[in-house]
Amino acid sequence: MRPVSIIGIGQVPVQKEQSQSLRRLGASVVRQAMLNAGVDRVDALYAANMLGSELQGQKQIAALLADEAGLPGIEALHVGAATAAGAAALRTAYLAVASGAADLVVAVGVEKMSGGVAAPALAKALDAEQEVPVGDTLISKNAELMRRYMTTYNVPEDGLAHFAVNAHRNARHNLHALYRQQTSVEQVMASRLIHHPIRLFDCSPICDGAAAVVLAPRDQAHTFTDRPVHLLGASVATDRFRLADRDQPLLLAAARLSAQRALAQAGVTLADIDFYEVHDAFSIMACLLLEAVGFAQTGEGWRLAAEQRIYREGEIPIATMGGLKARGHPIGATALYQTCEIVLQLTGRAGQNQLPEPEIALMHSVGGAGTTIVAHVFGNQ
Amino acid sequence: MRPVSIIGIGQVPVQKEQSQSLRRLGASVVRQAMLNAGVDRVDALYAANMLGSELQGQKQIAALLADEAGLPGIEALHVGAATAAGAAALRTAYLAVASGAADLVVAVGVEKMSGGVAAPALAKALDAEQEVPVGDTLISKNAELMRRYMTTYNVPEDGLAHFAVNAHRNARHNLHALYRQQTSVEQVMASRLIHHPIRLFDCSPICDGAAAVVLAPRDQAHTFTDRPVHLLGASVATDRFRLADRDQPLLLAAARLSAQRALAQAGVTLADIDFYEVHDAFSIMACLLLEAVGFAQTGEGWRLAAEQRIYREGEIPIATMGGLKARGHPIGATALYQTCEIVLQLTGRAGQNQLPEPEIALMHSVGGAGTTIVAHVFGNQ
Repeated sequence: MRPVSIIGIGQVPVQKEQSQSLRRLGASVVRQAMLNAGVDRVDALYAANMLGSELQGQKQIAALLADEAGLPGIEALHVGAATAAGAAALRTAYLAVASGAADLVVAVGVEKMSGGVAAPALAKALDAEQEVPVGDTLISKNAELMRRYMTTYNVPEDGLAHFAVNAHRNARHNLHALYRQQTSVEQVMASRLIHHPIRLFDCSPICDGAAAVVLAPRDQAHTFTDRPVHLLGASVATDRFRLADRDQPLLLAAARLSAQRALAQAGVTLADIDFYEVHDAFSIMACLLLEAVGFAQTGEGWRLAAEQRIYREGEIPIATMGGLKARGHPIGATALYQTCEIVLQLTGRAGQNQLPEPEIALMHSVGGAGTTIVAHVFGNQ
Repeated sequence: MRPVSIIGIGQVPVQKEQSQSLRRLGASVVRQAMLNAGVDRVDALYAANMLGSELQGQKQIAALLADEAGLPGIEALHVGAATAAGAAALRTAYLAVASGAADLVVAVGVEKMSGGVAAPALAKALDAEQEVPVGDTLISKNAELMRRYMTTYNVPEDGLAHFAVNAHRNARHNLHALYRQQTSVEQVMASRLIHHPIRLFDCSPICDGAAAVVLAPRDQAHTFTDRPVHLLGASVATDRFRLADRDQPLLLAAARLSAQRALAQAGVTLADIDFYEVHDAFSIMACLLLEAVGFAQTGEGWRLAAEQRIYREGEIPIATMGGLKARGHPIGATALYQTCEIVLQLTGRAGQNQLPEPEIALMHSVGGAGTTIVAHVFGNQ
């Protein structure tokens, strides 16, 4: 496989409600990423968008973004994996460059969740025959995971609250983050009960956003930028839909498998990971991911948060720019935001959130409640 | 790029209404293609399905099919390009093998259009801001193309009727085809006017179906089958959505561009193409594709049909197993059906429809009314 690098990024501030249309929002980050990379053309564009078909009545979004961005004739495809769509687009863009089919490729994600009711469309990520009819939603499944986790491991009621505290703390200086105000364990625990035992501050917000990156062959990357970030490993893994069908519902098998494969491809171990951009759509998901990957023993992930070891100063920083919780989780765009943030960290441009000379990052994106999980490993050397 | 071959195919008969569920239908052709290839595992699965989100309330379909087919943990992603979704899945599967990221990969398409109203969901392939609000649908846009074509080139009223006649003639001995009865120019012209000037027999049917193929690296293909078919070239091209925004609305620019690129990659010319599996969702689309690719001069494509030069015995056979018109057009599955049929032709297993020793085939898939067009070139040597 031909090695692949990221040579440009583009992102807009996440908002509760964007005035720009889906096409303009998406095209604006495509152009921004191309400008950042210093390129005026690309060979292909892979787009992620989960809810446009329901909320904007729009399919064939990849061709629409290519058109709106003024890229006539280029290859453009729509790639999905429910809430992991952005990572699926990055994965496909990677395959296009790695194969040699294309040199310059954009991966873009865009989502407008405002102005509609997102929850029923989000629930289509579940099994429509076996889960939706019995009342399951993405929130109810995460609530079930959290309930089981708290009970099984005897976790104190506020055991997961530090995930939100960390996320808000890191969002403070991220100009693209939706929630930049700080929070505390007390505020998290006082927030509204959404779906027992999940409270408002255990959830990432419904919001609008778009982000994009430009990929190029590694051996050409230095002609575009003096600070390329390399995509060292990538893997997608899948799991059963229903928790009852999984051997160990509290162990995200697809997270473990995808991380193992991506780390192996990158030729690094967990000990080499300087920070971990996690899919904290819900606090419990961040916790289970930390355990699945191996940063914590089973049942001990919450302690990494409670003991502040996930903070930027800690042993395994997560959500270093606010995460899904505080930067926001505009579904199809989320993994591209994560990628932009990883690029900022690995190129020393993360501002007041800058980690001390990080070299290797791991990123996870989760489709549904752990059904499709995409891992990417990035490095700056 | 690592050369890629097809080592197995699977398809079920197209039906007006399938009793099997979407997941079972899709999983059955995945297993059938794997059985045909003689493999009991694959590394990845790329799935196409356009309408499941609306008609079955199901997203994340790739993971669902992997689960249902008993393929735990594998990579699975959903790929789309509206009505060209099946070709988009084949394209992505090709990239995965060509890059070296995977060795054995399934591309699968499945669609159940029965039991719901497909037209509004199909219209989401158009521009939701500029086309749908003014009443455009996929049918109305094809009607507009046909109206312009007939007028511009002074085509006799029954000038396009032979496209349907040819398709039904070729479907007769295809056990997977929906419509195996024959038709005539008179019957086509007597059929109901659907949307002026499109008659019922100018349209492919609403139906259910699924098809899949297994890809492998070419240098390993002979360990699985003594008759591999090679994917010699592949390209995706895009065009503006609105006809009014295209320089020449009657010239499908994305068809021309994608064919040129795919032929160049394959190292062949138009003269080398023994047959052309065309996206005859509407007769006018087949006609415009023949012209865009260069099999006919502009305004002359209809003569290829009227003079029976598209028949199996003609100079450029199209829709050799019935095409979208008579085999059926279960959207996400269509390009995989086309691929299965090309494999049958190129391996001498097309039965009574067998062409005399064909070596090279071209396939086109169309997203929307010419917005995303995917070309693939196949060969048996």
